[in-house]
Amino acid sequence: MSSTRLSLSDIEDLAYQAVLGAGAAEPAAAAMARATRAAERDGIRSHGLHYIPIYCEHVVCGKVDGRAEPVVERPRPGSVRVNARSGFAHPAIEAGFAELVPAARENGVAGLAVFNSYNCGILGYHTERLAAEGLVGLGFTNAPASIAPHGGKTPVIGTNPFSLAVPGDPEARVLIDQSASTVAKSEIMMRAREGEAIPEGWALDADGNATTDPEAALKGSMTPSGGAKGFGAGLMVEIFAAALSGATLGKDASPFSGTAGGPPKTGQFFFAVDPEPFSGGAFADRIADLVAAIDAQDGARVPGSRRFANRAPADRDGVDVADALLERIRAYVK
Amino acid sequence: MSSTRLSLSDIEDLAYQAVLGAGAAEPAAAAMARATRAAERDGIRSHGLHYIPIYCEHVVCGKVDGRAEPVVERPRPGSVRVNARSGFAHPAIEAGFAELVPAARENGVAGLAVFNSYNCGILGYHTERLAAEGLVGLGFTNAPASIAPHGGKTPVIGTNPFSLAVPGDPEARVLIDQSASTVAKSEIMMRAREGEAIPEGWALDADGNATTDPEAALKGSMTPSGGAKGFGAGLMVEIFAAALSGATLGKDASPFSGTAGGPPKTGQFFFAVDPEPFSGGAFADRIADLVAAIDAQDGARVPGSRRFANRAPADRDGVDVADALLERIRAYVK
Repeated sequence: MSSTRLSLSDIEDLAYQAVLGAGAAEPAAAAMARATRAAERDGIRSHGLHYIPIYCEHVVCGKVDGRAEPVVERPRPGSVRVNARSGFAHPAIEAGFAELVPAARENGVAGLAVFNSYNCGILGYHTERLAAEGLVGLGFTNAPASIAPHGGKTPVIGTNPFSLAVPGDPEARVLIDQSASTVAKSEIMMRAREGEAIPEGWALDADGNATTDPEAALKGSMTPSGGAKGFGAGLMVEIFAAALSGATLGKDASPFSGTAGGPPKTGQFFFAVDPEPFSGGAFADRIADLVAAIDAQDGARVPGSRRFANRAPADRDGVDVADALLERIRAYVK
Repeated sequence: MSSTRLSLSDIEDLAYQAVLGAGAAEPAAAAMARATRAAERDGIRSHGLHYIPIYCEHVVCGKVDGRAEPVVERPRPGSVRVNARSGFAHPAIEAGFAELVPAARENGVAGLAVFNSYNCGILGYHTERLAAEGLVGLGFTNAPASIAPHGGKTPVIGTNPFSLAVPGDPEARVLIDQSASTVAKSEIMMRAREGEAIPEGWALDADGNATTDPEAALKGSMTPSGGAKGFGAGLMVEIFAAALSGATLGKDASPFSGTAGGPPKTGQFFFAVDPEPFSGGAFADRIADLVAAIDAQDGARVPGSRRFANRAPADRDGVDVADALLERIRAYVK
């Protein structure tokens, strides 16, 4: 498979031109391009340029309104609410953060709810932007239902990740970003395409029984990581990202993939916390101590460290992009 | 084993008299007695009267200062900080909630950090008190280290639960309350006492290898529920409850059990969120819809429902308490 080495700036520019060409407004295209650059820089290829043809297709088919202008309200001093108006999640979250960051500094903590939203890509990308402002960021995002409650068989919640970012130098010191499912749904879809069995424990069939058949799994449900506790973590995410934001519950949301069903109108929720008034100045030392206790152990790693390690080489050398993917992306550039 | 049926009021009164008799001040004894009544009402026997001799012993030996008066500060409009001064966690959390609840209503969201604290018992007991005020409560509490980072072998974090309580009628509608470990440490201690093997997957020995020997497990570490993701959940708890509150990290804390090591000085952190400004009035309907989708499935249950179901019978009939336990408790009553 032939590929071309691109710098991160070239990647950002290409992503911008493609999303713009598909019909999005400039601020939305710029927000999606920044997130794409960050994903490629972090080595998370699945959410880098790979997603650009999907974003473009969704602008074209109307699953996303590429020209929506998010509406920001601040009904209370520490409460920010954004109506994404069926546009991309990224510019809606950015617009909300512009209010959330000063609100967190003034109040010690503030919250942001985003509704009428869309797939926000890598959740840790957003929480890390709060960490870069010196704030602890805790985020939640919901997705179309794929996980059944423990003991049940009908999906009620999505793979619903949460993410926690702790300020560091230059960006985050710790970056937890984990979904509620045992594996990503894309792992099962890949095995279905390739006709391979999936390991036991990843998924259930439509009757709630364990299965190794990826096709049966896609008609059934994903298992939560850690059983009932994984479902509990995903339910917490659903309660913040969908119920508390007034967004569409995962069980009622249209799919994130394909062109059917219109906008998913899912949601996000973020807490931003200023560590100073809570810890009396002790926070940075405690984090350094905690991180050192993990780093000292062979085989253990601090959450986020893989992403952080990918950054300098990608900044310096760029990354290889498959020519077939480049061709699909360039088809949207006008 | 002989036992005596006690009403919940009798249980609360007995707990109060015992903790007072051990040397605690009246407000601390009353707070511990209320929590004991709630645990017995919810059917969580392990954290009901069973804990009273431990609390009393800890007052006597100085692991808890039963006469400490918590100091509450509110450095920012949405930020509350409580120094528990090596006293019980319960009265410190109550003192903090008295500021947290109005702060959350005014600001939309507020946070409470508690440091120089102690074992807070059932975490969901505290978050549910926020739910009873019409607020979404999200809580974290840390504990002496027993879980190693995924891939490592030295414990860095405790069984560190988080709890989310959603307002309902009369108390909570959903109550998530789950630790980061596969099982409670008390399950392993019980098997060690009885000389029974533990199932594979519960614990690792001191070299980081899987073990079914409970003694080896107690010298090693507890496995996190769901592997790396369970460790991530427990690390989130440690970051809020210990680092953000400026409390003692689990890896440096004295044990919660036994009389050695002095006060553990661990911590708690709580978010209280007013759903109204974030959801624009949609919250209660979304929760009802989500709960109905879980309740409709045979074999599935909404988190907290087991506790809720235990309440009416315990209120009506009281609960049976082992006479041997009653005798140990009555020894502290003056």
